[in-house]
Parts: sequence; structure tokens; C-alpha cells
Amino acid sequence: MTDIHKTGRVTIPTDVDVVPETLELLKRWGADAIRDCDGTDYPEELKSVDAKVYSTYYTTRKDNAWAKANPDEVQQCYIMTGFRTAGDGPLSIPLMQGISAELMEVNTRDDIKRWWEVVDRTTGAPISPDAWRYEDGRVVIDAPEAFHDYTVSFLAYLIWDPVHMYNAVTNDWKDFEHQITFDVRQPKTKKFTMERLRKFIEDHPYVNVIRYTTFFHQFTLVFDELKREKYVDWYGYSASVSPYILEQFEKEAGYRFRPEFIIDQGYYNNQYRVPSKEFKDFMAFQRREVAKLAKEMVDITHELGKEAMMFLGDHFIGTEPYMDEFKSIGLDAVVGSVGNGATLRLISDIPGVKYTEGRFLPYFFPDTFHEGGDPVREAKENWVTARRAILRKPIDRIGYGGYLKLACQFPEFIDYVDSVCGEFRELYDNIKGTTPYCVKRVAVLNSWGRARSWGCHMVHHALYQKQNYSYAGVIEALSGAPYDVKFISFDEVKAAPSVLDGVDVLINVGDGDTAHTGGAVWEDPAVSAAVKKFVYNGGGFIGVGEPSGHQYQGRYLQLSGILGVEKETGFTLGYDKYNWEEHPGHFILADCQGAVDFGEGKKSIYALEGAQVLVQRDKEVQLAVNEFGKGRAVYLSGLPYSFENSRLLHRAVLWSAHSEDQMNLWLSSNYNVDVHAYVKNGKFCVVNNTYEPQSTTVFRGDGSSFQLDLAANEIRWYEI
Amino acid sequence: MTDIHKTGRVTIPTDVDVVPETLELLKRWGADAIRDCDGTDYPEELKSVDAKVYSTYYTTRKDNAWAKANPDEVQQCYIMTGFRTAGDGPLSIPLMQGISAELMEVNTRDDIKRWWEVVDRTTGAPISPDAWRYEDGRVVIDAPEAFHDYTVSFLAYLIWDPVHMYNAVTNDWKDFEHQITFDVRQPKTKKFTMERLRKFIEDHPYVNVIRYTTFFHQFTLVFDELKREKYVDWYGYSASVSPYILEQFEKEAGYRFRPEFIIDQGYYNNQYRVPSKEFKDFMAFQRREVAKLAKEMVDITHELGKEAMMFLGDHFIGTEPYMDEFKSIGLDAVVGSVGNGATLRLISDIPGVKYTEGRFLPYFFPDTFHEGGDPVREAKENWVTARRAILRKPIDRIGYGGYLKLACQFPEFIDYVDSVCGEFRELYDNIKGTTPYCVKRVAVLNSWGRARSWGCHMVHHALYQKQNYSYAGVIEALSGAPYDVKFISFDEVKAAPSVLDGVDVLINVGDGDTAHTGGAVWEDPAVSAAVKKFVYNGGGFIGVGEPSGHQYQGRYLQLSGILGVEKETGFTLGYDKYNWEEHPGHFILADCQGAVDFGEGKKSIYALEGAQVLVQRDKEVQLAVNEFGKGRAVYLSGLPYSFENSRLLHRAVLWSAHSEDQMNLWLSSNYNVDVHAYVKNGKFCVVNNTYEPQSTTVFRGDGSSFQLDLAANEIRWYEI
Repeated sequence: MTDIHKTGRVTIPTDVDVVPETLELLKRWGADAIRDCDGTDYPEELKSVDAKVYSTYYTTRKDNAWAKANPDEVQQCYIMTGFRTAGDGPLSIPLMQGISAELMEVNTRDDIKRWWEVVDRTTGAPISPDAWRYEDGRVVIDAPEAFHDYTVSFLAYLIWDPVHMYNAVTNDWKDFEHQITFDVRQPKTKKFTMERLRKFIEDHPYVNVIRYTTFFHQFTLVFDELKREKYVDWYGYSASVSPYILEQFEKEAGYRFRPEFIIDQGYYNNQYRVPSKEFKDFMAFQRREVAKLAKEMVDITHELGKEAMMFLGDHFIGTEPYMDEFKSIGLDAVVGSVGNGATLRLISDIPGVKYTEGRFLPYFFPDTFHEGGDPVREAKENWVTARRAILRKPIDRIGYGGYLKLACQFPEFIDYVDSVCGEFRELYDNIKGTTPYCVKRVAVLNSWGRARSWGCHMVHHALYQKQNYSYAGVIEALSGAPYDVKFISFDEVKAAPSVLDGVDVLINVGDGDTAHTGGAVWEDPAVSAAVKKFVYNGGGFIGVGEPSGHQYQGRYLQLSGILGVEKETGFTLGYDKYNWEEHPGHFILADCQGAVDFGEGKKSIYALEGAQVLVQRDKEVQLAVNEFGKGRAVYLSGLPYSFENSRLLHRAVLWSAHSEDQMNLWLSSNYNVDVHAYVKNGKFCVVNNTYEPQSTTVFRGDGSSFQLDLAANEIRWYEI
Repeated sequence: MTDIHKTGRVTIPTDVDVVPETLELLKRWGADAIRDCDGTDYPEELKSVDAKVYSTYYTTRKDNAWAKANPDEVQQCYIMTGFRTAGDGPLSIPLMQGISAELMEVNTRDDIKRWWEVVDRTTGAPISPDAWRYEDGRVVIDAPEAFHDYTVSFLAYLIWDPVHMYNAVTNDWKDFEHQITFDVRQPKTKKFTMERLRKFIEDHPYVNVIRYTTFFHQFTLVFDELKREKYVDWYGYSASVSPYILEQFEKEAGYRFRPEFIIDQGYYNNQYRVPSKEFKDFMAFQRREVAKLAKEMVDITHELGKEAMMFLGDHFIGTEPYMDEFKSIGLDAVVGSVGNGATLRLISDIPGVKYTEGRFLPYFFPDTFHEGGDPVREAKENWVTARRAILRKPIDRIGYGGYLKLACQFPEFIDYVDSVCGEFRELYDNIKGTTPYCVKRVAVLNSWGRARSWGCHMVHHALYQKQNYSYAGVIEALSGAPYDVKFISFDEVKAAPSVLDGVDVLINVGDGDTAHTGGAVWEDPAVSAAVKKFVYNGGGFIGVGEPSGHQYQGRYLQLSGILGVEKETGFTLGYDKYNWEEHPGHFILADCQGAVDFGEGKKSIYALEGAQVLVQRDKEVQLAVNEFGKGRAVYLSGLPYSFENSRLLHRAVLWSAHSEDQMNLWLSSNYNVDVHAYVKNGKFCVVNNTYEPQSTTVFRGDGSSFQLDLAANEIRWYEI
């Protein structure tokens, strides 16, 4: 290891009570940046330290005086009441039932008849504004249709910043003021904000990097009367609205705005929903407006000689790092929390910034750093899990957060992070400026495309729901796999099927009639024909779960002709099924040890004539392959993430791309070990992803091989 | 037992080689009718026996001379090819691929451009007749849209009667002629048929009952090139078509006929499909026409002094025993095969005939009656399973079929059937003329209503598919339960919500988006409001599986407001769910021993606020109850048939109807034992449904009780 590896690329937190420790760790870990955190202060003594200083900056809160003086410019959100059934008389719907009154306040300031909507959910139509009235927190419909269900979509002010509320409730804070979220997109607050930013920067001359947390709109996060989380969507746009901007949207879109565009039947356009044209229009509008306004702040930051860094979280709605407008903001950096490989790539793949930084776990908080806690285990898991992905596309820096004082009480942890910092600098240096060897170009096809690169399953950031293990499993596998991965939307395929040119294997994974698999988009001949053409002409296709699942014209799986399987929904029970013979010797299964773990799998999948069943259980197909024209398809009922399943997916990718002969190139025979090659830099590494020693045969790019034993977690570098 | 019980109500088969045995069994079993079977002959010596003689009569086959002389009047069916994807050039679709050429022959005699349809399944639209041509068994599309999928809907002649083919293939018959199915509804064949019937009756003066097998149209039954069953639908209408009658249909309906009305995307309007208006129109047309023509045959039968009996099977399509037209046929009797309680009720509940007869199992065939076979076990299971239902609504006669010679080789079987005949006559006598005590009026709500009473899940008569165990389970439970059961369609609810008046409990069971649960019908406010009103005003509702399951306006389970549960389809993953606490002490669970068997259950059901979860497993609700207005609802994730689950359903019925206090009336504390009361006749019975002895407490109608021990299968009669 040369000296160049020994410092840099690491950010540490500090606080007023840990000045000597900060200085010690700066040296020990080779850190070159120091940050404050929410709840910590930056010590006077460190203002002149030889390291970059980051300062968190809250664009939308921490100034209740302003918020209280300008209640009309407090941040707003759209929210829908529950369903209420009319009996024979009038119907009275309480707006705030089930919602914390500390979090929200009904906005009756704006024209409720214009900005609210009372929808007859039985007919699906909004009722006339004349047919309802508001009184005492309730909407009253005097003459509803008997036994129809109604909902009210209304605007509410966010009178307590949801993240502040979450932190306060979780940590049981006492004696503090609720921070009110103001809306920087409103005219008075915009002007105020730019002045406030200038003042902040001028007041903090020792700060080098303004770390925006974040810009303008909180992701959707609602709490109930018991202050329990009620609804969360890390990508939700419900809290990015106000009559002021919606009027602008109307002008741009050229049609009248309806609350339903945001409310979406109470589903709030979450990622499982196939997005409507109106919501896509709204997102595009927000992207442009948010980018424009964020650029103003970044320009001020630059003008005053500071770097601008964005935290990918909290109020990041509208920034959309993977969309074209993002580059125009001019940010220097993005920082985000790293939970696994997918969240690592979510940060490291962002184009258009000078550098990216990953905030690693565990936070130096008492939940981990207490008597009997095991922060080393958590750190190790976090590092090893993310490392797979870093080796594909590195972040440029790593960092930690929390109370440094706590970490210092665990010397083994200090040692471990020391080794991580060194390992990170070494791999960064070896990888720098290259693209790792990619055996195939793989594209994930869904309704969101690159806008939701790596994260389309994240309801709550790194978390996924159990119903969703396959999408999470595939994405996590891809985050560390030797492919050039891209995310394509159906809209792109429709607009220009040439988006599929150069793709080797297309993946469609998820439940039927969701945005993951496309739903009614398959009724569009431009889309279905383009995908069929791609496979027919030799492309590979991997479908997991209910790929292309949508009932239409005699099929549930719209690509059943490609996949060679169909789902029994009852409609084909009259058809006899004879294709159940398993072909366990198939290339795809060659590395499987015992029974494949498909997770829950999917019920009632059967094979069509001509398909080859690889695994079926109780006459439900779990894994099958099929040929379609010159192309090949693989069906998997489910794919929870594991090293073994990542290997199965790798074999499926190669088989579907007719590339079985490329198997033993830059590969470890043992699927617990990865091989990554950086040909341009003349380096390759072998990395043990497990916490146990592993033995393997390593195949080089010319097919030659050697035997290797690796210690637990070990990474070993070689010259090519 | 009085003498009156010792004879009558039993039909036995005969053959030329078992004349003494027939006479012996007539006496021994107290049989009063003798029948021939397919493959047996009626012996000369028995023509003057003192018993009714049944003769099977095949309306549509067993006269190949006629069929061959009139190839234009051979029975036809609509059939759809598989899906074929167009590449860049012309597309050629082989019509008969996957279909036995011995079974069908393409009909090119009629105008194929009028009666066939080539459908672009990618767009869902038929292509112009000018855009395709037929040659050598194939349809060629010269300029298809590239990568669109096409199907051809065409007419084919049934050149081998499907049931005859089935019998021949199954029994490996050699040296015989394929019986061709002719179409009695065509003008020449109609005339011929009436003359043929007269001649048959005149030639068989010893016959008392003409047993029609059946009338005109075979249920859908298709075999593939390997003579394997390819498609079966016991209620299918695909083989009831011809240009001749379709032109009549067009006149009646007032709109142009499209093959798609029958083809239905290749689903052939099977029972899981929510029927289209056009298919319902077509069924109604067929009902009227079939009834009219069948009446002509029955009138001739009566004119010539014979009884007319219909076999509920084979060519029964269009007769629709539960619809009003059926009565007008004037049949004396219906006979059908009894596989379980549901199939028993399918026969015994038929209105408008003088008597019904059940054909019991096992058939006297070598598959059961062989060295080592156990026909007594099969007979016992069949009898005990059906007896539950007989005690609710008896058939008027029982009978057996097959080769009597085989049965005679099993003296224990002869003894057992002797006891069954006696038991049947006794219970028939006790029940005669009464309605058993019904604790509640229960209605099953689905898209088919009474047209598919008891049988809406039967793809192949008594068989059900595993995907469908809940519908089968609920219907089987109802077949022997103390309710007045009716079957209601959504159309009836829409036309007149008063159809729900008098119903205590409504049941909706099955998978979402099928005819069992209604699919898009829930978008009709007239339907959803009527059901909500029914429950709101105090009605009971039991939903099993995915009741009212159809994605619309913010909900998957359209009655989630009533049921208190919803299905997670991904769209509500962002909502936190807190209602998981179980309430194991609920009335509905009181008789459950250990874990309830929900079968496969349904994935991802969660409870809404206010509902009471009775059972959840891994945070998926299996059983929950809810109150809605004055009404109550019960949700069950699945309900395979068992005595324990029948009791659970009974408790659910009583609880949902606010009738917990009616539990211990005419009830056995042990759920393996049933109590049926016939108040008008002053009788009640206690019946052990199991093959082991049982002890129980029997509750009378006044709430008084007594202890009882019953032998295996025992039925015991009491005076009230």
C-alpha cells in the first residue's frame, strides 16, 4: 500500500465535546472532512482544522419565526380521507380522522371549492362543489347517493416537519418547538430563503461544503393521532403541492389540474402504481421547477466560494437525480445513506455531479453503541454488503454520522473502520477512471425507468416489503453483478424501440398490474410488439414473478408466448396441462446446491407446450426456459437475494443471451466469491462476500484459472 | 320398518348375460326399474318383468348413415387456434394443430369470411376478411403487423362424438365405427329425428321410460392429436353453434353475431369468466330454442305412452334445468351422476319435473370390481357423502349403472347396497313432502346465479381444481347444511335489489376478477350500493378468498368497507398496518380443534381499523369479522371442505345473522354428526357422517338435549 492510500475520501462527524478525539480520528482513519449532524454543534476549536468542513443546511425548516409570520407559505400536502359510506341521510366526513393534528392543519385559506375534491368512489366521479360544504373540520354532503362511498381530497399545511416529528417521537424529545416546514417555492419564502442562505454562509466562514438537507419538498410521511407512522413513500410527491405552483402547472400542462392527479384514489402515485400521464406531466413540471430553484441556491453557494452537496433524502422530492434536469442544478456532490448494494448504486450511479459520498452504518447512536452492543458486526455487514456494489461503481467518499463520543468507547470499532477506510482507498485507487469488465448489458424494464433506477421497490428507502422480495432480490443481485445495468421505461420503448438496441437481456420483475411489470401498458401494441421483436431477433428475456402480468386478450402474462408459461387465473382451468417434466441438468441450475429458494414464488404458473420446465413444485412452475424466434427467455417464480440466487440469475443472464461460453471468464467457481476486472487499469480483485473463509477457482479473462483460499471478507488484488 | 319401505325407488342395470341375477336383485334390493347402459343390451327375457324399463336414447348419434348422408348437418363447434406471432413476413396459422383430426374437421362448407374471424390479439380487433385467406388447413395473413399475435376462430364439424371418443379411447375399444354427432336443430335432421324417435319407441314397446342422453348439444370436450383431453367444460356452449342457428340468433338479438361471442379470447365463456351481455343473450336464445325442440320430443314420447327422462350430462347444453324454460319441456324426470353433496343437490333441487334420480357410485366397471378392489368402501363413501345432501333435499330415486355381472361377484357389495336401498326408502318416507328445518336463508352471489346452482365451480362435473377448493368447499358444506339456499346473480341484484329481501346471509366466494366474485360488475353502483345497503340494514355477509375482488377506485376488495379487510396488491404497501391482534375466543371459532385449515388461503390480506382479526398467520389475515351499519361480515381466506369447516361456516352464518342464540337448535354438539328436523312430519334424524363411532349431545328444536352414541355411518330416526 502506498502513502497515497493512507489519507482522504473519508468524512467523520464531530461535536463540541470530542475535539481531541476528532483530531485523533482524522489522523487515524485518514479522514479529510468533518461534518456536523442534526443535534450536534460544530466546535470552535475545529474551525481551522486541515480538513473540509461540511455543514448541514435545512432549506425548509429551522426558522419558525418566518414560518409563523407567513402561514400562507407553509408547506402543503394533498391528503385523502378514508372511505365513508352514505346511509339514507346526509354524510359527514371528518377530514383529520386518522391523522396527527400536530402534523397537519386543514388549509381553508385557499379556495376549497377549487382545490379540494369530494369523490364518489362508487361511480369514480367527483361530485359538484355545490353538493358539499365544509364545517368544523368536516365535509358534509347533504344529499349523497345512498350507499355510495365518498372520500375527500383536501390540502393541509405541514405544521410540523415530518422528519423532525419522526426524530422527536422516536427519541422521545422533551421541551422543544415543533419545526414548521415552509415552502421555498412560494414567492415571499423564496426571496427570504435566498437571503437566509447568503447570511448563513456569511455567518459560517469556516464551512467548505453546504450540505443541503435537502431542497424543497419532503417525501410523503404521515403520522396518525397516536403519532405512529401512518403512511410513508420515500419517493412520494404528495407534499410538493400548493395552489400557487399548481396554477403554474396548469399553465404549463395546458389542462385543468385535479387533486386526483396527486391523490390517485388514495394510492398517491406510489411506485407500484403505473403512473398516469397527468402524474408524469406533474413530475416533469416539478423536476424543471425544482432544478431551477435549486440552481439558484447552488449558484449562491458557489458565488460565496462554497461547495454544494445534496443529501439524497428528506426534502429531495423533485430533484430526481437520474433525470436530465438534475445536472443543470450544478451540484458538486450527492451524499446518501448506504443500506445495501442497491442503495449504494442509487448514489454512486448518479450522473452529473463531481463526486458522491456514502454514509455508512451504523450511526454512532445509543441504539448500537451501548454496553453489549456489537457495532463491529453491524459495520462489517454494512461494508461487505455494499462492497459488492462499490466494486462495480464506486462512490467517491465514505462517511459516518452520529455522536463520535460513542464510537470512541469501542476501540475494536475504531480499528475496524480504520481497516475499512484503508480498504476503500485502495480499491478506489485501483478502480479509478475505469469501467469494470461487463459480461452483458442488462436492462430492467418497468413503468418508471431511469427515474427510479435501483430504487423502484423502495417504499421506505433501503427497506422493502416482503411482498416485494423478488424485485428487491433482483436489484440487489444486479448491484454487484458484472453487467452494464440500465433502467428503461415502457414510455421509452414506445417512443423509440431503439432504446433496446445494444441490450443483451431484458428483465421484467414484479407482481402483475403494478408499475414493476407494466399493467395495461401491454395493451399498447407499440410496446408489446417492440419487446417481442427484441426477443424474436435474439434478445434475452428474464421474467420474475408475474412479468407482463395483465389480463388482456386471452392471456394473463402478456408475454406468455415468449416466456412459455402462463398464470392460471381460473380462466384456463378447462385446458389440460401436460408439460410438467423437469430438466434438472440445465445450464442455469448447474451451481445450485439442493432445492432452489424461490421465496414465496407465485401460485398457479404452468408451462405451455414447447417450454422446458426446470423446476416445478406441486404442479406449479418455479423455473422454466423457452425459445422464441432467435431469442431465449427464462421464467422465475421468485428470487430472494442470496449469493446462490445471484449466481442462478447470472447463469440465466448468460443462457438467455446465448453466452454459456462466457461463463468462466473473470469468475469464481464458488458463488460466495466475486471476481471484478478493471482491464484498463490492469487490475483485478477477488473478494469473499461472506464472513467465513472460502476456497475457489478463479478464472481470468483468458479462461486460465488458479486455486485460491480467502479469509473471511477478504479482498485480494492482482495485476492482469 | 314397515313393508312400504321394502320396495321401490331403485333402478338397476342389466345385460343379456345376467337375467337370473337381475331378477334376484330386483327382489333383494327392492328395485322397481331396470335400465340398459351404453355397451349393454336389454335381455329379451326381461321385457315382461314387473318393473319399469328405462332405455337410453341418443338423440345426436348412433346413426352414421344419416350423418354421412347429411354432412352439412353434422354438429359444429367454434374453436380458436393458439396464438401465433407474426415476424416480418406473412403469417401462416395451422388451424388443426393441437386438435385431434379424428374429432374435428374444419368447416369450409359455410362462408368462412362470414363465420370465421382472424383476430389481432395485440390490438384486440378482428382483421378484415380481405386480409387473410384459407389454404390447405391454414389461414394465411399476407401482411400482418410485425410482432402482433394472431388467432383464428373457425367452425369445425364434430366428426366423432366426443363422449363416444372418450369411451373408446379410455376403454381402448377396437374395431368400431366413430359415431358422428348430427345436429337436431338443423331442418333436415330435425325432421328425421322426430321420425327416428317415433320409430324407436314403436320398436321398443317394452320400454317405459325414454332416457335421453341427452338432447342436442355436447358440452365442450376437445382432444388433441395424441387423443388426450385438451379442453373440457361441463357447461361449455362452444359446440352448440352453426351458421343456421346463428342467423336465427342474429334476428332475435338484433345485432350482428361475432365468433368472439363464443370464442371469448380462447376462454370459451367458461364459468370463471364474467359472462358478457352477448353470451348471456346467446344462452337465453339457446335455452328457448332447445326447450322448444326438446318439448317436441317429449310430446312425442308422451303421445306414445312413455315417460321422458333426461340425463344431466353429455348433450345437455342449452337445457339449463334451473331456468324457467326448462319446465316448459315437460320432462317427467331428470337423472344424473352423484359424486358428492353438491352434485346431489344439482339434481335434487331441479324444479319442474315429477321426479329426480341419482346414479350412485361406483359404476359396476372393472376399474373397481376386480380382484382386490373394494367396491364397498367406494359405495359407502359415495352414499355417506351424498346422504348429507339427500337429507336436505332428497332425490326421488337412486340407481346404479354398469355390468351387473361384475357386482354379483362381490356379495358384501350386494349386501351393502341392500342396506343403502332400505335406508334410502326409509329416509325418503320420513322426509316426503316436507321442507327440513332451515335455520337461515343463505344466498350465494355470483355472476351466474341460479343458472349455475350448485355447479358454478364444476369444470368437469363433480371435479374441482385445486385453485378452486374454497368455492367447492363452501358449496359442498351448503349442500348438507340447514339453510334455505339460493343462488343469485349480479344481474338480478341490479334489476331488482328486492331479490335480497328475505335473505339472511349473502356469500361471495372465489378469486378476484372471476365470475365467482363478480369482477368489473362492482363498478356498477346499482350492484355495489344494493349489497352495501343489504348489509348496512342488518344483513349478514360472508366473503371467502377474494370476495368482490376487482381493482377499482382505491380498493381491490370492493366490499372492504363491509369486510374490514383489504388485499395488499402493492398499492398500499406505504400504509402502516397495526391491526393484527387475534381474538381467538370468538363465537365463530368455538368448535375449532387446533389450527383452522384454510387450505392455501390468500396472500397479503390485512385488516382495516375496526375489524376484529380472529386468525392471522405471518401477518396475513385468515379470518376476520367486521360490523357495517347494523350488519355483520365475516372474511375467510379459504375454506376447504371438512366437517370441522362446515361447522365453522355454520357459526359464521349464525354470527353474521346476529343469531348466535339459535346455535343449539336441532344441532349436534359434535360436528361430525348432523341433526335434521322435518317438523311437518314430526320426525328428526341424527346422522353420523363419519366412518367411526361418534358420541354427541343432540339439541332438539326447543333447546332440550340428550346424549347419544352412534355407530359408524349410522342414521337414527326419532319422533318429535
